[in-house]
Amino acid sequence: MDTHSKLHMTTDEFRNQGYKVIDWIADYYEHIEDYPVLSRVQPGDIRAALPASAPQKGKPYQDILADMDKMMPGITHWQSPNFHAFFPCATSGPAILGDLISTGLGIQGMIWATSPACTEVETHVLDWLIDMLDLPEKFKSTTTGGGVLQDTASSSSLVALIAARERASNGDTNKNGSNGHLTAYTSHQSHSSIEKAVKIAGMGKNNLRIINTDETFAMRTDLLRSQIEQDIQDGLTPAFVCATVGTTSSTALDPLEAIGKICKEFDIWLHVDAAMAGPAALCPEYRFIHEGIEYADSYTFNPHKWMLTNFDCSVFYVADRKMLIDSLSILPEYLKTKETETGAVFDYRDWGIPLGRRFRALKLWHVINYYGVEGLQEYMRGHVANTQQLKMWIEEDDRFEVMAPVPLNLICFRHKNGDEFNERLLNELNASGQIYLTHTKLNDQYVIRLSVGQATTTLAHLKRSWELIVNTAEGLNKG
Amino acid sequence: MDTHSKLHMTTDEFRNQGYKVIDWIADYYEHIEDYPVLSRVQPGDIRAALPASAPQKGKPYQDILADMDKMMPGITHWQSPNFHAFFPCATSGPAILGDLISTGLGIQGMIWATSPACTEVETHVLDWLIDMLDLPEKFKSTTTGGGVLQDTASSSSLVALIAARERASNGDTNKNGSNGHLTAYTSHQSHSSIEKAVKIAGMGKNNLRIINTDETFAMRTDLLRSQIEQDIQDGLTPAFVCATVGTTSSTALDPLEAIGKICKEFDIWLHVDAAMAGPAALCPEYRFIHEGIEYADSYTFNPHKWMLTNFDCSVFYVADRKMLIDSLSILPEYLKTKETETGAVFDYRDWGIPLGRRFRALKLWHVINYYGVEGLQEYMRGHVANTQQLKMWIEEDDRFEVMAPVPLNLICFRHKNGDEFNERLLNELNASGQIYLTHTKLNDQYVIRLSVGQATTTLAHLKRSWELIVNTAEGLNKG
Repeated sequence: MDTHSKLHMTTDEFRNQGYKVIDWIADYYEHIEDYPVLSRVQPGDIRAALPASAPQKGKPYQDILADMDKMMPGITHWQSPNFHAFFPCATSGPAILGDLISTGLGIQGMIWATSPACTEVETHVLDWLIDMLDLPEKFKSTTTGGGVLQDTASSSSLVALIAARERASNGDTNKNGSNGHLTAYTSHQSHSSIEKAVKIAGMGKNNLRIINTDETFAMRTDLLRSQIEQDIQDGLTPAFVCATVGTTSSTALDPLEAIGKICKEFDIWLHVDAAMAGPAALCPEYRFIHEGIEYADSYTFNPHKWMLTNFDCSVFYVADRKMLIDSLSILPEYLKTKETETGAVFDYRDWGIPLGRRFRALKLWHVINYYGVEGLQEYMRGHVANTQQLKMWIEEDDRFEVMAPVPLNLICFRHKNGDEFNERLLNELNASGQIYLTHTKLNDQYVIRLSVGQATTTLAHLKRSWELIVNTAEGLNKG
Repeated sequence: MDTHSKLHMTTDEFRNQGYKVIDWIADYYEHIEDYPVLSRVQPGDIRAALPASAPQKGKPYQDILADMDKMMPGITHWQSPNFHAFFPCATSGPAILGDLISTGLGIQGMIWATSPACTEVETHVLDWLIDMLDLPEKFKSTTTGGGVLQDTASSSSLVALIAARERASNGDTNKNGSNGHLTAYTSHQSHSSIEKAVKIAGMGKNNLRIINTDETFAMRTDLLRSQIEQDIQDGLTPAFVCATVGTTSSTALDPLEAIGKICKEFDIWLHVDAAMAGPAALCPEYRFIHEGIEYADSYTFNPHKWMLTNFDCSVFYVADRKMLIDSLSILPEYLKTKETETGAVFDYRDWGIPLGRRFRALKLWHVINYYGVEGLQEYMRGHVANTQQLKMWIEEDDRFEVMAPVPLNLICFRHKNGDEFNERLLNELNASGQIYLTHTKLNDQYVIRLSVGQATTTLAHLKRSWELIVNTAEGLNKG
């Protein structure tokens, strides 16, 4: 931007067009329920609506904004109160405005000196969150640990694995790359990003042990222990266990305390992935999900899922920050500063994969300040209560069955007519445009997942959705 | 957001506060030169200005916006026309507004179905850019290749390395994790992210061969060849070469054609890192930087550096997308869709580290449409011409010397008074608040880097900066 310019947008033009974009977003939210939740376009439709090549001459900004009409049919409306697919990706007004300020400032916080506020607000807010969620003190920056924002839990789990790999190999993998003897452990209900991380880190998926689960889909610790013992007997080195608080399929809760004791006994890094469920611990009554968390070496949850902060924003804590930094640090001449060399500051480039970093903490700062702890608690409690009400309606209808425990805000259920019927039911519901649901498989059965978490989902929405589900199933039965 | 709510920001409030944030950003740009470019706070100053714990009750949005005053002293002003440190991280009005729309929509494009427009606009714009920069057709989505947006070139280089690792090990590393026999090659002037990637990928930094450079700081291909031959003789498997177009220290240009021929001869993956310099190829007269690019298996450049698109936005192309996808793909039940299973669409979750993805292409779409190809060319040409003018001023002053070739927009220079003097000079200049410069070492000498690329930097700014440098040096000589 420039104050007066032929090439760049002037600040006056930015004001005028910026107001219009703000209005465009507000209008979108006012009419969000008018769109089909799941986009109906076919592969290639959106590309076909766009010019084949880039314009030689620039276009007035209002034409670019108008071009959004060509893209909107290709949008799946994650912020719709009727979006119940996957996990929520809830945003909010303060989050959007906080991120806008970050974008406007356009700073890059790779090291402390390149914008001290970017580093310090991040450290500060992540320390706040430890108290807010009643997490262990060892994760605080004021002790041996610390928090950092990653883009996603995939990246959080990857850096945890790298640190674990280096701890188990005494830094030898970073030096010599020989790590075929290291093993990792997670349940068969854990997130796909764990297998992906094991591959990226060069540990080999054959060295990832997939531990079976109990009837609640939680990791069986007897099997974990026997697998570890077997591996040690075979001359391998167990390096990493990932436990999940709220699995993606069914929000199952791995028993952290029992897993933690095993990790402690065998000196294995315990990483806890609470990507979606973590912020439930804002409410004391849901803190049972974190029982045993004091054994964790690292922990991640995503405010961009169920805490009203727009994507991307994944919180990652580590108990021994030195281990993490030693695993990832680089220090070329052009990044040396006196603050870095004296170690007086955090340089977050050494806490994750990318060197460059946005001022991501600003949106989190906005959300926490706007809602306050009590507002966030009210939001969580509302979703859990509404989910439990919906679960009762499903249980009361003997044509349907709930297929997994519902500790928080996700219901796995199915119609009793079998796999094929449930798949048709899901497709029919999604085709209606009135709801978006996804599926999983539990005990080899096709199961419909209904996840509650978007900011504006109310009990009235869930009631209408339940009626839609019942009526659609009836229609299919008749058809 | 909600149309009427006690808990959430209403759309009316969003409009009112949104306008204020837009004004806040416009005001910031109108006064950006009034701030010291490099933040002057001491470690801990920003944290000390913030409340020790999170508020129990929420705050009105205007108070949160007012709180920005506490953070501004901790901002280093990357968008100032007097920011010449590191590499540029130039943004622009259309980029900010494009990203705001993306944030407002709040969608998550991990797979095609979760917002087809997010995937298709990304594919489309990256195909546009191949024509705009005259890159090889094999990178186009319509052939065997394709483009994808990553957060940073660090991630782009990492995924290139993973794909190379799997190609060289026939997928064995992903399976079994044994990769101690694979070697990688780059020049000692390449970016630190290459060493970091080698460590993350579990290949071991001892298997990274650092190749020496010639008098222009470009990789010596005779040494590359002899090292590869030696490694093969030693029973190792050369897997990956990273060539740099525009090194971070001095914008040196590795000889792509000669390197490419060697990679072809020995069947080694060639990755080209043109993070900052790449978009210069928008102008036909600067396309010499890419001579030999047809040999590359993958290529990255960052529109968030020198192409007016706010951070983060790194373009990554691969010639054989199947190789990349095979290296990174995962397909759990809960992510299966019919479009994915038939292979009719791209699912970008398999093209990078994170599963989740913002609608990042929107800001790039905005920038290209707003400026047009000609506007972007004008912008590039202005910066190169101004940099060359400054270089002449430096060369004409016999107290100073230029220390490396200046092919584009970065000048490495020093005062002839030696290392210690130059370090003092740099510190004094940065302390003035009127400019921000960083340093590097070339041939073991301390060298000041002056990088040109922020949107609003004009020749007048460079002239004032040069006078400041000369006067500050004179002052130091007298003092």
